[in-house]
Amino acid sequence: MLYEVFNVLELTRHTYFSKHTQEGFDMVLETADSIAEKYMRPFLKAADRNPPQLVNGKVHVHEALHNYYHKFCESGLLSSTFDEKYGGSQIPNTVYAAADFIIGNAHNGFEMFTGLASGAARLLITFSSEELIDQYASRILAGDWAATMCLTEPQAGSSLSNIRTTAVRQPDGLYKLKGHKIFISAGDHDITPNIVHLVLGRIQGSAGSKGISLFLVPVKRIEKATSTQNGNSILIDNDVTSIGIAHKMGQRSTPAMQLEFGNEDKCIGYLIGEEGKGLSYMFQMMNTARLGVGLAGSYISTAAYYESLEYSKMRLQGKRQKTPFAADGEQAAIIGHPDVRRMLFLQKALSEGSLALVMQCYMYTDLVQTSSDKDRVRYQDLLELLTPVAKTVGAEMGAVSVNNGLQVLGGYGYTEDFILEQLARDIRIMSLYEGTTGIQAQALLGRQIPANDGRSFQYWIDEVSKVILEAKHIPELRHYGDWLLKEVQALDMTTEHLLNIESRGNREVFLSDANLYIEVFGAVAVAWQWLNQGIVALRHLKDGQGESVNDRLFYESKVETMRFYFHYELRKTKGLHERLRDESVITVAPRKEILV
Amino acid sequence: MLYEVFNVLELTRHTYFSKHTQEGFDMVLETADSIAEKYMRPFLKAADRNPPQLVNGKVHVHEALHNYYHKFCESGLLSSTFDEKYGGSQIPNTVYAAADFIIGNAHNGFEMFTGLASGAARLLITFSSEELIDQYASRILAGDWAATMCLTEPQAGSSLSNIRTTAVRQPDGLYKLKGHKIFISAGDHDITPNIVHLVLGRIQGSAGSKGISLFLVPVKRIEKATSTQNGNSILIDNDVTSIGIAHKMGQRSTPAMQLEFGNEDKCIGYLIGEEGKGLSYMFQMMNTARLGVGLAGSYISTAAYYESLEYSKMRLQGKRQKTPFAADGEQAAIIGHPDVRRMLFLQKALSEGSLALVMQCYMYTDLVQTSSDKDRVRYQDLLELLTPVAKTVGAEMGAVSVNNGLQVLGGYGYTEDFILEQLARDIRIMSLYEGTTGIQAQALLGRQIPANDGRSFQYWIDEVSKVILEAKHIPELRHYGDWLLKEVQALDMTTEHLLNIESRGNREVFLSDANLYIEVFGAVAVAWQWLNQGIVALRHLKDGQGESVNDRLFYESKVETMRFYFHYELRKTKGLHERLRDESVITVAPRKEILV
Repeated sequence: MLYEVFNVLELTRHTYFSKHTQEGFDMVLETADSIAEKYMRPFLKAADRNPPQLVNGKVHVHEALHNYYHKFCESGLLSSTFDEKYGGSQIPNTVYAAADFIIGNAHNGFEMFTGLASGAARLLITFSSEELIDQYASRILAGDWAATMCLTEPQAGSSLSNIRTTAVRQPDGLYKLKGHKIFISAGDHDITPNIVHLVLGRIQGSAGSKGISLFLVPVKRIEKATSTQNGNSILIDNDVTSIGIAHKMGQRSTPAMQLEFGNEDKCIGYLIGEEGKGLSYMFQMMNTARLGVGLAGSYISTAAYYESLEYSKMRLQGKRQKTPFAADGEQAAIIGHPDVRRMLFLQKALSEGSLALVMQCYMYTDLVQTSSDKDRVRYQDLLELLTPVAKTVGAEMGAVSVNNGLQVLGGYGYTEDFILEQLARDIRIMSLYEGTTGIQAQALLGRQIPANDGRSFQYWIDEVSKVILEAKHIPELRHYGDWLLKEVQALDMTTEHLLNIESRGNREVFLSDANLYIEVFGAVAVAWQWLNQGIVALRHLKDGQGESVNDRLFYESKVETMRFYFHYELRKTKGLHERLRDESVITVAPRKEILV
Repeated sequence: MLYEVFNVLELTRHTYFSKHTQEGFDMVLETADSIAEKYMRPFLKAADRNPPQLVNGKVHVHEALHNYYHKFCESGLLSSTFDEKYGGSQIPNTVYAAADFIIGNAHNGFEMFTGLASGAARLLITFSSEELIDQYASRILAGDWAATMCLTEPQAGSSLSNIRTTAVRQPDGLYKLKGHKIFISAGDHDITPNIVHLVLGRIQGSAGSKGISLFLVPVKRIEKATSTQNGNSILIDNDVTSIGIAHKMGQRSTPAMQLEFGNEDKCIGYLIGEEGKGLSYMFQMMNTARLGVGLAGSYISTAAYYESLEYSKMRLQGKRQKTPFAADGEQAAIIGHPDVRRMLFLQKALSEGSLALVMQCYMYTDLVQTSSDKDRVRYQDLLELLTPVAKTVGAEMGAVSVNNGLQVLGGYGYTEDFILEQLARDIRIMSLYEGTTGIQAQALLGRQIPANDGRSFQYWIDEVSKVILEAKHIPELRHYGDWLLKEVQALDMTTEHLLNIESRGNREVFLSDANLYIEVFGAVAVAWQWLNQGIVALRHLKDGQGESVNDRLFYESKVETMRFYFHYELRKTKGLHERLRDESVITVAPRKEILV
């Protein structure tokens, strides 16, 4: 996917990435693989069965998680996408995403900790002062301290503009924070001696979402020591208290904390960037995190796929029906049964399709980095358009995929003897993290689609059209190119239909089925990615005479899975378009009581 | 649903049910409700968090489960559908199902124990000797002893013909059993001093599925005492050993046991009915159990629906979009948001739609009881046709519904503070119990549809047509009647298309997408039930001038939910038909290796 589908080596033509080679990228992946198999996968079940506990105000996490965190940071992976001036090695985000896929596939709970640290460091480097970068971001990137993002409050989940955490400006230019945050992933642990929280708060007296600012709030803050202490910096307790830990359905190795800031009125926050710009800064981290969630959906469902696949080859059960391929009555490994094959193909189609879509987005982040003005805007637009789609496809289709994977194992899949039941619990959070599917759907239809007179959407159609055009030159794919073209046209028509509703002034009706819109958009976007993979695979099958049997099988499997995706999964767009163009209004109602 | 939709009081015209009145039926429901709220619902979480343990070869279950079991039996509910001569009160299965819905809604794990006891007693009374009924079934019905069904073995899950448990006939006409069974629900516990297992085994020397017989294998068997013991019966240990307990994703209060029979070669089994007929006897219990699973899908998803509904009324979050109904910027309880309303409607549509379908099946069981020859055959055919559909709709759509319910609660839904995450874990087993969805699909398309030259399917179309005809006389429903007619015609065409594939001799291709066939069949069957409910509701709204505001709201909600079902859920049939009529063969392949 990296070298053949997304051509990441093209990126090395640009100065920023020019030091890199394929060998270097391969080493990154191998490092990730080695950490994953040694420090992560062996502890997947154990860390679920022994979730972190909050004891005497402090959280203790699984010992294996300590090892993983330190190994990951020591390996250089944590800082690998950062500028050399911050100790990074400037590898492309797309390559890092592939490494992250490998890591998260082995342990989606552990991955969270390093993912948050890297995201927080990125935000600080982009928006905060050199002093804060020097004091805090550099320590995070070095692996000394961990980090989090603190947004949600009991009364403010999807609606961040309702947050109540307050910041009072002090004479010295710092702020005193006071408030409660909930569901703070990795919000407390004993891995590092300090944790750097990025906290959304409202400066006293300001109102609305523009009154929200972003603060760096460490558990222990750095202070200049007095002269009697030799003038060195010292760490001072910053009045951040762990007051609760959520017990969750899955991803149980990652504590979701309830934190109190300023219980003793001694909690100092350092303003990041300018006052009132907190939400916009946080959304930069949030958008990166959304891609991470889409990727997580894909790596968890891929982990499930390989479990199901291995099981289906081992498990003998039942006989195949009469067929040209099997004698009547032949006992079969269940991989021989069409219904099991259907579930496996579905797993593969959704896992690798959602992976391709999210990798495409990471590629756009790198292209933004390496492109000139006009292209840069185009890639940025494409990225913003597709981020909620890639997040949602990974989360929602990933959950469907894992659910099918559990079903492949029959009753065994429901037991703790196999990993499927845990992966089904783990992946369920992805539809909630970083904005629920409903919120992503509103972001897509309500913001990205109408933005700039539909320019982003048109850019995307151009991208899809390129792939369709290529497919038309390959006889085996012409049919699928035509098919995708029709799907894009249908999506375009539905989009226009919905925009017409908005132009008539009823925004609530316009957005009421946004959830179905993102579902159909996602289905077409994955078809685009599968057709693209199909093109690459067929090209190899035609050109690569000398390739090994396994290589040929790999590419043939890609083509078959592409076909499966179109013939089975893409079918569902019909019903979605019908509903989206049907103007019977049922869910928008003046009378709430009608639901009893 | 009982009195207005299914007219259960009509049943009391027949001699068998003639003693009953609406007041009597209401009392059954009230008894169930009282047990549910006092002995079940309060322990839903606690029993999940403290699952049964196997200690020193014996399973201890939650104390609350003991109380429930005894209360349920004492109340007379356990034996209520049985003949008076067995101490029962001959209430219709449909009424009992309604009581069971109430019970299971409060605690789906506890319900399993009484459900299995009742099913086992029914099987014994239908097929076993008077002696075994007298010795064992009567004790089960009295609540003294519990019971199970023992089918699955490690190598024989979906494929029961591969079981290896052997039975060796002894000179006295009894059998010695030897074998392992797994996943035996309620297979060991300390509620009753004895447990009666119904065990599928193979009589030594016999082969194939016709070699399988059914045995009653108590944990303690009744033996005539010797004269020195005053000639009374005594209970002898029967060599049944608990060797393992499965740790499960959900329904954790119900132990799924691994049992060994005859470890010391002292396990006696009593043949039920005739040799070689084990599978056909067991399938009678199995078919009843399948309806029970469909009902369970419905009662769990209903429990989730009411949790989500209550939450959505309490939780303030975000503002409504500009709309004729809401001022821009008005803060809203989330039930006001269209996307949340969509999820709630979906929950209600699937929960009450699947309930209606399974109640329809129970009604057929009662009509079989009360009908004369020709009608009896018709109702029996309808029952057999619809049993796999009702089971699958309850299980699969129930899981979709609960998943939506969890989403309504956002991040809170993922925590153990709310019941949604547990209900999501609990309901997942329903797609596996009593034959996976794949097995149900094969039973429907492979057996029920072609049976008797398609007679059963035609009977069902007749039933649906009656409802369509009625709807055409109600102006508000004419459109939906026409819509359902088109759906039935489409299903008929797809069915014919598939049967043509079979007639061309490729049974494996014919059955390869049976899973999609049962999905589309289920969607149309639920539409039939919703239209029927819509007719009843509209009739009430038109006639019932004097009814209360709440009553009107109840019926209006039914009509709106019916509309929702058609405009949203029934849309998915299009894509399913397209795939089912598409002859591109992808999942039936000679080369297993193509999945990599």
